[in-house]
Amino acid sequence: MSVIITGTGSYIPSSVTSNDEFKDHRFFNEDGEQLSENNEVIIRKFKAITGISERRYIKAHKVTSDIATFAANRAIENAGIDPETLDYIVVAHNYGDVPNGHHQSDTVPSLASRVKHQLKIKNPRCIAYDILFGCPGWVEATIHCNAFMRGGMAKKCLVIGAEALSRVVDQHDRDSMIYSDGAGAVILEHSPNQENSENRQGIIHHLTATYTLDEAHFIYFGPSYNQEESRSRNYIKMYGRKIYEFAITRVPEAMKQCMEEAGQEIEKLKKVFIHQANEKMDEAILLRFYKLYGLTPPEGIMPLTINTLGNSSVATVPTLYDLVRRGELSGHEVAPGDLIMFASVGAGMNVNAILYQV
Amino acid sequence: MSVIITGTGSYIPSSVTSNDEFKDHRFFNEDGEQLSENNEVIIRKFKAITGISERRYIKAHKVTSDIATFAANRAIENAGIDPETLDYIVVAHNYGDVPNGHHQSDTVPSLASRVKHQLKIKNPRCIAYDILFGCPGWVEATIHCNAFMRGGMAKKCLVIGAEALSRVVDQHDRDSMIYSDGAGAVILEHSPNQENSENRQGIIHHLTATYTLDEAHFIYFGPSYNQEESRSRNYIKMYGRKIYEFAITRVPEAMKQCMEEAGQEIEKLKKVFIHQANEKMDEAILLRFYKLYGLTPPEGIMPLTINTLGNSSVATVPTLYDLVRRGELSGHEVAPGDLIMFASVGAGMNVNAILYQV
Repeated sequence: MSVIITGTGSYIPSSVTSNDEFKDHRFFNEDGEQLSENNEVIIRKFKAITGISERRYIKAHKVTSDIATFAANRAIENAGIDPETLDYIVVAHNYGDVPNGHHQSDTVPSLASRVKHQLKIKNPRCIAYDILFGCPGWVEATIHCNAFMRGGMAKKCLVIGAEALSRVVDQHDRDSMIYSDGAGAVILEHSPNQENSENRQGIIHHLTATYTLDEAHFIYFGPSYNQEESRSRNYIKMYGRKIYEFAITRVPEAMKQCMEEAGQEIEKLKKVFIHQANEKMDEAILLRFYKLYGLTPPEGIMPLTINTLGNSSVATVPTLYDLVRRGELSGHEVAPGDLIMFASVGAGMNVNAILYQV
Repeated sequence: MSVIITGTGSYIPSSVTSNDEFKDHRFFNEDGEQLSENNEVIIRKFKAITGISERRYIKAHKVTSDIATFAANRAIENAGIDPETLDYIVVAHNYGDVPNGHHQSDTVPSLASRVKHQLKIKNPRCIAYDILFGCPGWVEATIHCNAFMRGGMAKKCLVIGAEALSRVVDQHDRDSMIYSDGAGAVILEHSPNQENSENRQGIIHHLTATYTLDEAHFIYFGPSYNQEESRSRNYIKMYGRKIYEFAITRVPEAMKQCMEEAGQEIEKLKKVFIHQANEKMDEAILLRFYKLYGLTPPEGIMPLTINTLGNSSVATVPTLYDLVRRGELSGHEVAPGDLIMFASVGAGMNVNAILYQV
């Protein structure tokens, strides 16, 4: 049997926040010192490194589970399935629902239960749970569902990555410009196709690693860099330089190992759908991945949305795949038979990769 | 092959809070009206329904991931395994780490990453993730690991349920007396034993259901019943009557269906380890379960810790099993060959059951 993506959907919030809108922010460093450069320079440098010129935020009355439901509905419609036939709804996120103006994450009930409720699914044997796994959560949830389907526990799964990082950003931290909101979803279906036939389709192999000895707190929840702000309110925080060094080593390693364990040749790889964290970092990961084979990356192998959509954590990979699959990302497409890879890196620190044949 | 529990451990906080310590609380109802009965009567009635006379709270400097690590260490020691050989660490919880005096849940990195960090495990192929599934989270995480092991993705897993509900209780809500803190953990190991042999051992069958159409918000995050308190701070809240009615119908159904799907006879069942939510509710579930077979429950089939340990959510089932397995719960024991059941119910609303042969 094989496990195939039969539908995709995403939700990209309509509100665009350009880099200009940060020009009056007061930025501080980790030690609480106000940055000496003027904001124009800060923003220009930020854009040069991350590639981000704008990002999307959800409207005030929305929360993460709402946009998860929007993406889910689109994936269900795209797959043309009856939602009552779903065996699993898995939502990957990191901060739960944080209503606008609130500080607390709401995680009870799970976001998957909220999505199931909003989808009005009656079938009690459709199991709804959330996974917390940093940015690689959606890729990992897909790996879970692959296991459930191979084990005969499921035939149809809805896997969602949804996050509203706008609700947990410190406006006094330059990194706040990275984060974005969004949701992506896929329908995975069991197929009786022979895996060893020539035209095999679906999930071929996957690999996951968790690094915690030194890395556990590279991405963390901490107080504002502006020390005049309350010390008891926390925001998403990261050690960018450490993460960069980690990612450009560990992600290419994992990608290569995934290819090798699957017995696949690098030359056959058509697209790499990588977590949209930072343009320079993603380019460095790709470069190093090919360098491990003594090669340079082929033109156009890595679609990017980071420039206009920012980093929406768990949502970036399924959103990117949805856009390419629907032909909505100029210059990129996937065709039946294409060998592609999904790869991610993030809080934990976690790294994972899935090799998939379209 | 089969999947066997080879080690158990739990952490029961040393601080005991008796019912007496609630006698000066001001209790309100859902509509914000102060309860007219005096607290002595309220506490007496509470005790009569829930069976709870005391509960445990973690110390001020501890958080949920700390007690998860304590329980994990005990399970690892009990199984006699090298923690570096673990393929998965899964932590079930609902509110993340809530430091004392803080309102925000800290879920980044995942609690599983924090546990792995505290255990000083180096092996990157030991995957650490969290599951949010209400009180049945530990049972569900065990079902996940069973699937991973059957699918050849793992041979050894550490499955933890840990919660510190003391950090999210509304002191003006009578239900606050129910909630407790604790952690329980097991080591699951792959065994090459034949499943169809006479003396088969391990996980025999499992069943999960998620009810969200009307039930999704039976347990929720809401403001204090005392309307003088901030409206923007939320606490664990529940519709107790609705949950009771739900649980005494859906849990016995799921338990029976699990037995039937496994082709097992009720007479062979030696112990039922059920989520410690409320003594009267658990007794009613057991009664109804046996009634579905036209029977009455055998004496001593259902060990209870609710009276002195309260409801520590995801932690109750693994803690209960650990205590019985170690012979620390007077009048209860398990022996090789015993057929037992783990069952749970909680936020989602989720229900699940595992049939297991010791």
